[in-house]
Amino acid sequence: MADDKIPTEQWAQVVEETGGPVVYKKIPVQKPGPDEVLVNVKYSGVCHTDLHAMMGDWPLATKKPLVGGHEGAGVVVACGSMVNNLKVGDYAGIKWLNGSCLNCPYCENADEPLCQGALLSGYTVDGTFQQYAIAKAAHVAHIPRNCDLEAVAPILCAGITVYKGLKESGARPGQMVAIVGAGGGLGSCAVQYAKAMGLHVIAIDGGDEKGELCKRIGAAVYVDFLKSKDLVADVKSNTPDGLGPHAVLLLAVQEKPFQQASEYVRSRGSVVCIGLPAGAYLRAPVFDTVVRMISIKGSYVGNRVDTAEALDFYARGLIKVPYKSIGLSKLQDVYTLMRENKIVGRYVVDTSK
Amino acid sequence: MADDKIPTEQWAQVVEETGGPVVYKKIPVQKPGPDEVLVNVKYSGVCHTDLHAMMGDWPLATKKPLVGGHEGAGVVVACGSMVNNLKVGDYAGIKWLNGSCLNCPYCENADEPLCQGALLSGYTVDGTFQQYAIAKAAHVAHIPRNCDLEAVAPILCAGITVYKGLKESGARPGQMVAIVGAGGGLGSCAVQYAKAMGLHVIAIDGGDEKGELCKRIGAAVYVDFLKSKDLVADVKSNTPDGLGPHAVLLLAVQEKPFQQASEYVRSRGSVVCIGLPAGAYLRAPVFDTVVRMISIKGSYVGNRVDTAEALDFYARGLIKVPYKSIGLSKLQDVYTLMRENKIVGRYVVDTSK
Amino acid sequence: MADDKIPTEQWAQVVEETGGPVVYKKIPVQKPGPDEVLVNVKYSGVCHTDLHAMMGDWPLATKKPLVGGHEGAGVVVACGSMVNNLKVGDYAGIKWLNGSCLNCPYCENADEPLCQGALLSGYTVDGTFQQYAIAKAAHVAHIPRNCDLEAVAPILCAGITVYKGLKESGARPGQMVAIVGAGGGLGSCAVQYAKAMGLHVIAIDGGDEKGELCKRIGAAVYVDFLKSKDLVADVKSNTPDGLGPHAVLLLAVQEKPFQQASEYVRSRGSVVCIGLPAGAYLRAPVFDTVVRMISIKGSYVGNRVDTAEALDFYARGLIKVPYKSIGLSKLQDVYTLMRENKIVGRYVVDTSK
Amino acid sequence: MADDKIPTEQWAQVVEETGGPVVYKKIPVQKPGPDEVLVNVKYSGVCHTDLHAMMGDWPLATKKPLVGGHEGAGVVVACGSMVNNLKVGDYAGIKWLNGSCLNCPYCENADEPLCQGALLSGYTVDGTFQQYAIAKAAHVAHIPRNCDLEAVAPILCAGITVYKGLKESGARPGQMVAIVGAGGGLGSCAVQYAKAMGLHVIAIDGGDEKGELCKRIGAAVYVDFLKSKDLVADVKSNTPDGLGPHAVLLLAVQEKPFQQASEYVRSRGSVVCIGLPAGAYLRAPVFDTVVRMISIKGSYVGNRVDTAEALDFYARGLIKVPYKSIGLSKLQDVYTLMRENKIVGRYVVDTSK
Repeated sequence: MADDKIPTEQWAQVVEETGGPVVYKKIPVQKPGPDEVLVNVKYSGVCHTDLHAMMGDWPLATKKPLVGGHEGAGVVVACGSMVNNLKVGDYAGIKWLNGSCLNCPYCENADEPLCQGALLSGYTVDGTFQQYAIAKAAHVAHIPRNCDLEAVAPILCAGITVYKGLKESGARPGQMVAIVGAGGGLGSCAVQYAKAMGLHVIAIDGGDEKGELCKRIGAAVYVDFLKSKDLVADVKSNTPDGLGPHAVLLLAVQEKPFQQASEYVRSRGSVVCIGLPAGAYLRAPVFDTVVRMISIKGSYVGNRVDTAEALDFYARGLIKVPYKSIGLSKLQDVYTLMRENKIVGRYVVDTSK
Repeated sequence: MADDKIPTEQWAQVVEETGGPVVYKKIPVQKPGPDEVLVNVKYSGVCHTDLHAMMGDWPLATKKPLVGGHEGAGVVVACGSMVNNLKVGDYAGIKWLNGSCLNCPYCENADEPLCQGALLSGYTVDGTFQQYAIAKAAHVAHIPRNCDLEAVAPILCAGITVYKGLKESGARPGQMVAIVGAGGGLGSCAVQYAKAMGLHVIAIDGGDEKGELCKRIGAAVYVDFLKSKDLVADVKSNTPDGLGPHAVLLLAVQEKPFQQASEYVRSRGSVVCIGLPAGAYLRAPVFDTVVRMISIKGSYVGNRVDTAEALDFYARGLIKVPYKSIGLSKLQDVYTLMRENKIVGRYVVDTSK
Repeated sequence: MADDKIPTEQWAQVVEETGGPVVYKKIPVQKPGPDEVLVNVKYSGVCHTDLHAMMGDWPLATKKPLVGGHEGAGVVVACGSMVNNLKVGDYAGIKWLNGSCLNCPYCENADEPLCQGALLSGYTVDGTFQQYAIAKAAHVAHIPRNCDLEAVAPILCAGITVYKGLKESGARPGQMVAIVGAGGGLGSCAVQYAKAMGLHVIAIDGGDEKGELCKRIGAAVYVDFLKSKDLVADVKSNTPDGLGPHAVLLLAVQEKPFQQASEYVRSRGSVVCIGLPAGAYLRAPVFDTVVRMISIKGSYVGNRVDTAEALDFYARGLIKVPYKSIGLSKLQDVYTLMRENKIVGRYVVDTSK
Repeated sequence: MADDKIPTEQWAQVVEETGGPVVYKKIPVQKPGPDEVLVNVKYSGVCHTDLHAMMGDWPLATKKPLVGGHEGAGVVVACGSMVNNLKVGDYAGIKWLNGSCLNCPYCENADEPLCQGALLSGYTVDGTFQQYAIAKAAHVAHIPRNCDLEAVAPILCAGITVYKGLKESGARPGQMVAIVGAGGGLGSCAVQYAKAMGLHVIAIDGGDEKGELCKRIGAAVYVDFLKSKDLVADVKSNTPDGLGPHAVLLLAVQEKPFQQASEYVRSRGSVVCIGLPAGAYLRAPVFDTVVRMISIKGSYVGNRVDTAEALDFYARGLIKVPYKSIGLSKLQDVYTLMRENKIVGRYVVDTSK
């Protein structure tokens, strides 16, 4: 089952040395194994993790040389002999979790992201900053036909990750969730998922521009940490009974926002940490954590069910991720902007350019 | 509805000044309000919290002067006019939660311990180190008739608290739970509850004597931190698949045991913190917490359902708490031993002596 | 704490004999007990249950003579001596559950509707078809100040009941729920709650007019049982993967709709039954129920948490219940229409007329 | 990866025609596909389902000709090229679920038994009444090395099924579960699992002999339906608060026991139906089901997690299944006894005889 127009060579961005830069060059197109598919990647989002992979600053080694990228949206062009859940022509997404063993205690319990044999796109296996990428068929995201492949790309990591975090928070429809960093790329995605899930959002970020964005995309309340004299009090006073939000989603885990969250979260509530700053620590007072029965939870990426659900919300038109488009050949420019903290929203690379 | 043999005066131990000592003296017997009962306390356990109450070293003010104690087992001798769930002659337990509003968002959700109007026995209201104590009828524990009032007393705080912590851990029957401090007073209680709940216990403590105790009362495995060269590895290797226990119950939350727990707990597992050391902090690395999806939870005392359940396990003969008996008049001696860390197991005071 | 303008007599509708009719007459105003409040009922919804109470055709005896009604919205005018969660002037709702013991295994677990000592408004105690009604303070609904007392009345039974049913269904945001009888009074309320909870609604009812209503208030899909040649197939084909909805809310439990629901519900899904037709039975094939792991659940009325949550959704403007207003003096006319099945939407009686 | 002593022919019991009898004959040994293993079946339990498969009286077609059996315990003798979770020499169990797609919405959610592409051992694919059987590697049960292959065989269907049912019941440790048919083969297994899970068992069956068995293996209470004059009252009075058990496990779903269960189960409790009598129906009154908020659930077989957990309980020595051993060549005799209802406990066939 393969499209006979598959070329033998393709354009890719390759990390040849730790620290980069990425090198735009022609490399061979791989053939899928029996349980794999080959996807013609049309577009791929660019995530902070891709920069970490190039810089090698996480406590987990990458493949070398490496083709990064894990938000790839494209079309299946070849299927391995044992694949029966996808066919040539299907819309497909390649996400952070490229594959997993499907047999370990975690996989058997639908916690594939915790599989110790997990393959990570653009990290331990080549990813989506190339025109043709390989993925395990069982893990490929099924993108509904009515989706635009360019616009959907950021859902495959940013969308799934914040959706998973909201599920992990345990907040139920009608309850209040505070989103810290609500005006950023992940944050604006989280605000929309939260609203679509029936949650009432207290958006927390800095500046009027972000406040307007948050309100426009559905936040019930905006608290500006640049203006607030007592953030903890201001968050609590914005819940109907003054007891604080049922959950907090921390999109950039740093010490001060974390400590504030553990103070304004409602007793019995949860503080969900997303994002992987190198070398950071959580710190919470024992007395208050115990007496108020607070949960502090880490949330990683979604499993296959979360992926399908996050895409379904998107396909129903409930989530819009703002992005800028650029050719794959310009990827290094995106990394440069990222290191300078100059990116608002998401960049999506077009592999045809 | 009152027993006409109720005296007007009684013996009690009174904290007259912060820092103590307790003063053994005669004080008046109170009359119950409409929604209260008067309990003739026969026995009361002595808990570390009672010492904190006397010393005033917690970030929460006590009543002054104060009769401490919150593990009181006795008999109902008078009922307020609106009480219909208890009658004179019933066995009754007075626990840490003496009363709560029953109307707030927490109480309505069966989370009475989080009620902001909660009355705390031996802390914000007089407790069980007296012969006749008052409690809100709705919060009095119903002690089954087949229980020995002396032996059951420590269940009313120690028992309920560890049982609640095990419930909060989310560990299911057949799963493994590590109990840190398993050979101590709370710990030996926790090991027995865990076993009765179908959990497999990895007991962690120091020394052969504690190891023998833990095995005798039901631990599947004992890990001696005094002998282990790599505690994290030793705990993980004692789970069938080597992935670590599903939950950890930390009975004395200190920094090193907490950090070890966050390392050996299974991915997706929970570390439940019990106990209230003044001024202590939890500290966990963000990367590992997120990628392994660990939950860190505080667990306080049980609600009324937990109380009934913990007593039911006891009444079925599944839990034995070792204790020493002493007269109420000797309470200060118990505090002295406690401050010198010389107590193994629980002291129970007999209010008739 | 009482308003001194409380009259000693008031207008009420009284069921003097089983089978009715109701008699519009002056009766004394009661005084609240220590844990009760007196509410000046301004408006009360009229529910099918009120007709059952008058007719005496349920397997549960009513008070006699009886003032019916259990959807009463008004203002607190007097508080008993022990009441501290309400004050004179507060907006208050009297619902089906007028009071419960707060001490039994069900009440302690926040399942007050299952309390064996529950007081039922307009059934075992006098209800809201009078100008001044009594309720246990702990059970009075707290109506937010921004609500219109006339419009909010039907939330107090219809709203809470369907909201509870949706919670009991276990359907999560993004999942699909079929609502059978979606175009009726309860149904249109359920469609709105479901949408506000992030659920995707398959509305099932008969006729174009109901279809238009369902779509207008938020249903994703409408299936007309009058036109469908294969209802089971039509419902399933309206879910993205063809496997059927995750849950079904059956608002009028009859044998045929129930059997269809048990066929089109997704494997592992739940069929939630609401509504109390006298003498009806559920009937399901064992083989299919077991192999597909279906849950069949009964859902009754909400507890206090459900009540507060259902009102919060309303207060945020997410729920509109269509109703017609009429004077309390005309209540018998409403019953007449009800028996003739001529009511669309809800009637609300104005106690001042 | 294959043992070179694998023969080309083997003994098997083959259903050549619907209705039987089974024919004991030599048939070829199959070769595993890339994702399959070949297991040298040493022992296989015989289940009622095997008889249904031979008789063809279920609403689901079987393979023809068919080798039945789905409780096979043996040793891996060959692995397909893509298998990496098993190796030659491993102890392995072949259970009812021989394989599933691992990609559908059910499989992705760890609900493989609901997979519409599931392969069923001894029903849609050849099973364990032969010396060498094929199974999908991902679904093979990992039998711990300390288990006796003969004694463990019945765990692979009977054990897993009742364990799953107990999990589905939602009953928590310390709660009461009634087991209907507790003295039978499935029942005695269920009593032991329930006890090991910390549940208190009310065993229901008929006759003194069964009563003694139930008590010996851990039931807290035995109710003899042959002697009881009011079964509903007798079950309820055997719970500490008289409100009935939290859950009921119905091992032989028939109308009368089902109706009784729906009456004595505690409000908010669940009645879990196991077992697949042809053509049977559940029937419950709507009023009581709704007002008491009862759940009626079907429970099928376990997934891979349930399988591992059920085997872990067994490997810890907590479950003993009484069985009789017989040669595979005598299988038809077992069916004859089964049709005459003369079997107490489980038969296990030895494939070497």
